[in-house]
Amino acid sequence: MPKDTEKRSRYANSLWEITVIDDRATLMIAASESDSNLYYATRFVAPDPFILLEVKGERIMVMSDLELDRARSQATVDRVLPYSEIERRVRAQGVPEPGMADIVHAVLQEQAVKRILVPGNFPFAFAQRFQQLGYQLETKKEPFYERRAVKTDQEVGFIEATQRSTEAAVAAAHAALRQASMREGLLWLEGEPLTSERIKKLINVKLMEWDCVGQHTIVAGGEQACDPHHEGSGPLPADHSIIFDVFPRSAYTRYYADMARTVVRGQASPELRRLYQIVKDVQEEAISKIRDGADGAKIHQEICDRFESAGYRTGLVNGRMQGFFHGTGHGVGLDIHEHPRISRNGTYLQEGEVVTVEPGLYYPGLGAVRIEDMVLVTRDGCRNLTNFPKVLELG
Amino acid sequence: MPKDTEKRSRYANSLWEITVIDDRATLMIAASESDSNLYYATRFVAPDPFILLEVKGERIMVMSDLELDRARSQATVDRVLPYSEIERRVRAQGVPEPGMADIVHAVLQEQAVKRILVPGNFPFAFAQRFQQLGYQLETKKEPFYERRAVKTDQEVGFIEATQRSTEAAVAAAHAALRQASMREGLLWLEGEPLTSERIKKLINVKLMEWDCVGQHTIVAGGEQACDPHHEGSGPLPADHSIIFDVFPRSAYTRYYADMARTVVRGQASPELRRLYQIVKDVQEEAISKIRDGADGAKIHQEICDRFESAGYRTGLVNGRMQGFFHGTGHGVGLDIHEHPRISRNGTYLQEGEVVTVEPGLYYPGLGAVRIEDMVLVTRDGCRNLTNFPKVLELG
Repeated sequence: MPKDTEKRSRYANSLWEITVIDDRATLMIAASESDSNLYYATRFVAPDPFILLEVKGERIMVMSDLELDRARSQATVDRVLPYSEIERRVRAQGVPEPGMADIVHAVLQEQAVKRILVPGNFPFAFAQRFQQLGYQLETKKEPFYERRAVKTDQEVGFIEATQRSTEAAVAAAHAALRQASMREGLLWLEGEPLTSERIKKLINVKLMEWDCVGQHTIVAGGEQACDPHHEGSGPLPADHSIIFDVFPRSAYTRYYADMARTVVRGQASPELRRLYQIVKDVQEEAISKIRDGADGAKIHQEICDRFESAGYRTGLVNGRMQGFFHGTGHGVGLDIHEHPRISRNGTYLQEGEVVTVEPGLYYPGLGAVRIEDMVLVTRDGCRNLTNFPKVLELG
Repeated sequence: MPKDTEKRSRYANSLWEITVIDDRATLMIAASESDSNLYYATRFVAPDPFILLEVKGERIMVMSDLELDRARSQATVDRVLPYSEIERRVRAQGVPEPGMADIVHAVLQEQAVKRILVPGNFPFAFAQRFQQLGYQLETKKEPFYERRAVKTDQEVGFIEATQRSTEAAVAAAHAALRQASMREGLLWLEGEPLTSERIKKLINVKLMEWDCVGQHTIVAGGEQACDPHHEGSGPLPADHSIIFDVFPRSAYTRYYADMARTVVRGQASPELRRLYQIVKDVQEEAISKIRDGADGAKIHQEICDRFESAGYRTGLVNGRMQGFFHGTGHGVGLDIHEHPRISRNGTYLQEGEVVTVEPGLYYPGLGAVRIEDMVLVTRDGCRNLTNFPKVLELG
């Protein structure tokens, strides 16, 4: 799915070198179910917030009684401490209602550490408490873990496996579209208008059969497709573009994949065919520029220029955005949108990153086209992890 | 699913009255896909962070070009401002790389507001920037929106609809267990040992057929069930307890449901039957105490006492927790674990809250039992939203 154009500063190259810091602790307090940095650091999924400390080279988790055993057997850390035991000690020292910050404080006191590095999304309420306790807090922008952007062979394998399920699910959906008949400008199947909801369900059920969780799957036709994040609803049109954007997460590996295709069931207008052709050409040209060291901002700008010079303008028309108004691509891994970006504030690409390349054009009245592949950045170019045809007319 | 015992302070009753504050703005910057307060306030789902401001009685969203149209047609706010337009203005005023905090600052300057109320999980990096810009930030603990805990009739209907799908999926799973044969202490189906993975997939696929997303579904047998958050893996045992804990979210309404049942395929030992009976008795007694004004901490303590006095001790044995070591219940709504709590640090219950009641006992060697219903708190008692039998032996 397309990522919003970035609002953040570009990272200096120097930030990519990992700095060894001995006199400060790294701290996260979050639920790893929703915080991918914490999951990356611990490989432990929990629905409620827990504590991870990295101090003097040691990685320490503090866990509730409920999660203690599971954390000790699953988490990739050095030590798992019982929250309730530390809490009892802190109470005995005279803190009547210790919170999570007080528990962290108790652990850090033993280590004589007064400086803490936290992610940018660290909860402000906890930060205030640490400041009261005399700590100096520093934040680090994303990527909090630089290595998370650079995928290992195993991680690439996980992403590819999720992608294979994505492709199979979209193939099944396209087969259903091919079976549909066309009448009164709509697609019909088994005596009923074929709806976005039905096709989305078909995709999501297929994905679940392969243990992949599809959420916010996009099957948007006609005018709806002109809004890039419209998920689609109601009867699907014949002879107009339908955007499929499918980005499930594996329930087991937790790695995402992401693919978009645009199809027409029936006959596309000559204008829509031209629209499809330029998006496809521009997408493939952009993919050919992906390599270690390539500038994501430059790749994005070149796409914008290509569209403009071909006469496809971007901007507000009658109060509505049209043209190309989202980022070109984003990293994919434990989050669907993660570092790096290929966008207005894009970063330099690195070998081992997995990124999408997904230009699109959206013109109410004419139609919308988005084509998205997911590629692995290599030293000299990239390897396309997507294996799915790019064909406009399903016939 | 069971909630970790709470670490937070109990809320004073007075906090439940909504205070009208005129001289400070309320601010959230988050992705409503993962932040339920923001979704509650806007009814708009977006995968990337956006800005919501409540200032002088007006609710203002600031949205990227990508989300602008969708936000204007879907979000329940007073005004949707285009991020890119404000960004251009701020750049023109000499800020070279404005971030989201600078955009908020531009909006607030027009309103002459210098105090901001944010949720406890507000990102620290943004908070620092606002402090630099001269704002005074205050946090508010959960529940950030008190009304979110008290469900409307429509919200109760959404939760019940998700619960009906949950029950149908668990019924299908139990039917598969009944079909299984028993050999060598295991369950077999179609010539293979019947695994947790297969039953979880059966449940999750069924749920998806009803547009509900099941994640981390628990089907844990024997010793695995003694760890309350173990999701279960490998062959399921005959004659031992199997815990089902299923808590999907509707893809359309976004409301969760939550139910747990414990069953045995085959014959339970007399000790396991006694374990089941006490958990069931205690659970039903706790449900009978739920009403407007009831004290969640007291209900929880009484369950702990009942178990202890019946000889079911809680504590560490050989370094592993056993007995009853999680909360009794939690609110259910747009989050699976939300305010209020029925736990050690539980709160007073209010009419209209939807809470789980889910005591459990876990004894390695003997087995584990957890029984969970979801109830609506009423003035004089509660209405059980769960409609599923409590039977230990499936036969």
